[in-house]
Amino acid sequence: MKIPPVKGTRDFYPPDMARRNWIIDGWKKVSIRNGFEEYDGPIFEYLSMYQIKSGQEIVEQLFSLQDRGGRELAIRPEITPTLARMVNQQINALPRPIKWFSVPRLCRAEKPQKGRLREFFQWNLDIIGMDNPLADAEVIFTTVDYLRDVGLTENDIKVTMSSRKLLAAFLRNIGIADDALGALYMLLDKKAKLPLATFTALLNEQVSDADTAGRILAFMETKNVSELRKTVNFKQGDDVDEALDDLTDVVDWLGKMDVGHYCVFDPSIVRGLAYYTGIVFEVHDVVGELRAICGGGRYDNLLRDFGGPSIPATGMGMGDCVLEILLSQKGLLNVPSHKQLDYFVAFVPDPALVFEAEGGRTPEDEAVKLVAQLRSKGYRADFTYEASGLGKQLKRAAERGAKVCIIIGEEFKEHKLAVKDMTTGDQDTVDKEQFLASLSC
Amino acid sequence: MKIPPVKGTRDFYPPDMARRNWIIDGWKKVSIRNGFEEYDGPIFEYLSMYQIKSGQEIVEQLFSLQDRGGRELAIRPEITPTLARMVNQQINALPRPIKWFSVPRLCRAEKPQKGRLREFFQWNLDIIGMDNPLADAEVIFTTVDYLRDVGLTENDIKVTMSSRKLLAAFLRNIGIADDALGALYMLLDKKAKLPLATFTALLNEQVSDADTAGRILAFMETKNVSELRKTVNFKQGDDVDEALDDLTDVVDWLGKMDVGHYCVFDPSIVRGLAYYTGIVFEVHDVVGELRAICGGGRYDNLLRDFGGPSIPATGMGMGDCVLEILLSQKGLLNVPSHKQLDYFVAFVPDPALVFEAEGGRTPEDEAVKLVAQLRSKGYRADFTYEASGLGKQLKRAAERGAKVCIIIGEEFKEHKLAVKDMTTGDQDTVDKEQFLASLSC
Repeated sequence: MKIPPVKGTRDFYPPDMARRNWIIDGWKKVSIRNGFEEYDGPIFEYLSMYQIKSGQEIVEQLFSLQDRGGRELAIRPEITPTLARMVNQQINALPRPIKWFSVPRLCRAEKPQKGRLREFFQWNLDIIGMDNPLADAEVIFTTVDYLRDVGLTENDIKVTMSSRKLLAAFLRNIGIADDALGALYMLLDKKAKLPLATFTALLNEQVSDADTAGRILAFMETKNVSELRKTVNFKQGDDVDEALDDLTDVVDWLGKMDVGHYCVFDPSIVRGLAYYTGIVFEVHDVVGELRAICGGGRYDNLLRDFGGPSIPATGMGMGDCVLEILLSQKGLLNVPSHKQLDYFVAFVPDPALVFEAEGGRTPEDEAVKLVAQLRSKGYRADFTYEASGLGKQLKRAAERGAKVCIIIGEEFKEHKLAVKDMTTGDQDTVDKEQFLASLSC
Repeated sequence: MKIPPVKGTRDFYPPDMARRNWIIDGWKKVSIRNGFEEYDGPIFEYLSMYQIKSGQEIVEQLFSLQDRGGRELAIRPEITPTLARMVNQQINALPRPIKWFSVPRLCRAEKPQKGRLREFFQWNLDIIGMDNPLADAEVIFTTVDYLRDVGLTENDIKVTMSSRKLLAAFLRNIGIADDALGALYMLLDKKAKLPLATFTALLNEQVSDADTAGRILAFMETKNVSELRKTVNFKQGDDVDEALDDLTDVVDWLGKMDVGHYCVFDPSIVRGLAYYTGIVFEVHDVVGELRAICGGGRYDNLLRDFGGPSIPATGMGMGDCVLEILLSQKGLLNVPSHKQLDYFVAFVPDPALVFEAEGGRTPEDEAVKLVAQLRSKGYRADFTYEASGLGKQLKRAAERGAKVCIIIGEEFKEHKLAVKDMTTGDQDTVDKEQFLASLSC
């Protein structure tokens, strides 16, 4: 019986796994050097956890299941609700700011397409307990620190930033009712993905007032914080000043951190998730042909919404699919080979060759014994199972990326090994005990 | 709204995550040095995949779900069916032997208890395309290579081995019908977990012939391959000789690999999974109070059962739960602290202190800038968000495990940094540019 894999999932054969490990190890390394600590949660949670704040799109894409007691569960489509639950559970024991990262496997029942799969890995960074815009800047800096580390320059990617607080204040100021904001965010978030005419038509439909729609469009197309006041004719007060101050602060900090040249203000950045409350940002390829590489922002109410205290938080999520496409396009997938052996131990497959001094053991016996010794000392070592010719074994050693090939042959009668450097081709005869003693443990 | 985690799952807070990473990284390191390559599959597969060969116990414990097209899926309870599917898909492109490992997250809807959770991690090793008993020995060696590496000796653990082929040949020889074998394996596998009287009663019920039951008991209690023939009065022929030769070969190879002292023959080892066909083994704590640490064996028909060619295979699975309990009991959980910083950058929180030569920047500005530079050079560096007193910042540096604390204060006016060694307490003043130049990149 032949069963196919499920659509939208990936099989990671060794070369694919090496690539996945390289991406995830890079995320981990940069998180740790930026002072974040790793956490993780279960692959599933109660379904209701995703119905609180994740937003309609994510709820529709849940893989839900029942446990044997009939409880409704769902495979995690994002890890932020788990983070909120975990932090709330230990809120009094955790020193703040809580700087945590994770690289969860996530599942969403989306239509599989370029850069979107039903199962993927996502780098998450979060700073909890800090309303200082420096925390938002640090999340953005850490994101850029990784992207820069793998070789992406400001000619490849840009960080676009705005503020949900600013957008909310602006929309309220021009007369949008509070209960209409959620649906409007969903539409505004799609601006970059839709043709302008389509977007404008949908916008006019939703706000049903051409002047208001025009002001929203003007707001979204402003490219500079300081021009914003002039362009969109803000009323004073409300949260506008605070939101603009926060944005200015984040831009200032990013400049001091020497990543300002990656970042631009762009009020068309809205983000789809329902729970953002302040700074929001995305990273895109400069060409603009791919989906967002990552997105994030401030979500000051989420912990409270999950039954905890009111504690500010800001964070970021980056999936592996779009990132891998971009790195591949740019020739930056510098994944080390998964075929790397320190030693390959070959043996002369001559049935007449027996080492009487070693209790009558064969070259194969001695090869297996030596491989076991090398491995136990921490070296990557292997051999061949079949007593094939020496030439074939050396070929196999080369295929396996062995640096050195050791040959057990005639000279082993004098306790000597033939040692072949696979890079230079040089071959030497070495005393077995001396060879073993020379290995650092 | 407060939502609890799902019963039988774990939240990995940073100290738990450090422990999980330490276990998994150890598995990976030992797999790689033994010549295995890493693979992985999706977290879910078609439900039918687990109905082919996994056995009734696993099928009953599946977390099943439907995708939006109504297709029946299940979260993986083991990875071997995925391995069989993946190998079959590329059977002609993969050089043999295929030596692969994986560390999948698995889910089973079991009753949570000591050493058994509903979600766990499992180290899997498999060698495909090799019927040589040396392959079975290599799987066992690699298993022991890890357990020995973390400090477990032959006084802590033992490998118990038997053969399904031997058991099947024996049972057929004493008159058990082929279609009764599956149910009998399930019962025999429980021998060590049941009181002897209970086991004997169940056995008598199942074979309904006291003499046959007695012979089965005698077989299972034999402790030595060579004694087996005498004890249980085998008929010649069938697979008995072949099975005994294979067992003898595995024992010989394990001796040559210098792990023979960990291993004993034990015909009561049966394994619950339905698909084993040859050598089977388990690792237990010597005291015998925990469940098996791992189990494995030869499964020569599985690839064929999954629609592929008939190719021999042998493998092993080790979960993280029992292992962690044992390592904890033995004081061998030597997990490095997750709180390790190379540098903590503190600053004098004096509003009057401003560096005119640096464009009027504050100590905090300079601290943030220096931290960003250190991180970009690959160092683990952090700072505090709040302008608290220097003493409080130094305390925070110590809590975070910083090796060195750098202080931005009065001396920065002369482009100098105070550098405090957190181990010795020694403090020095260093030129900023010299300090930066001294960092290897």
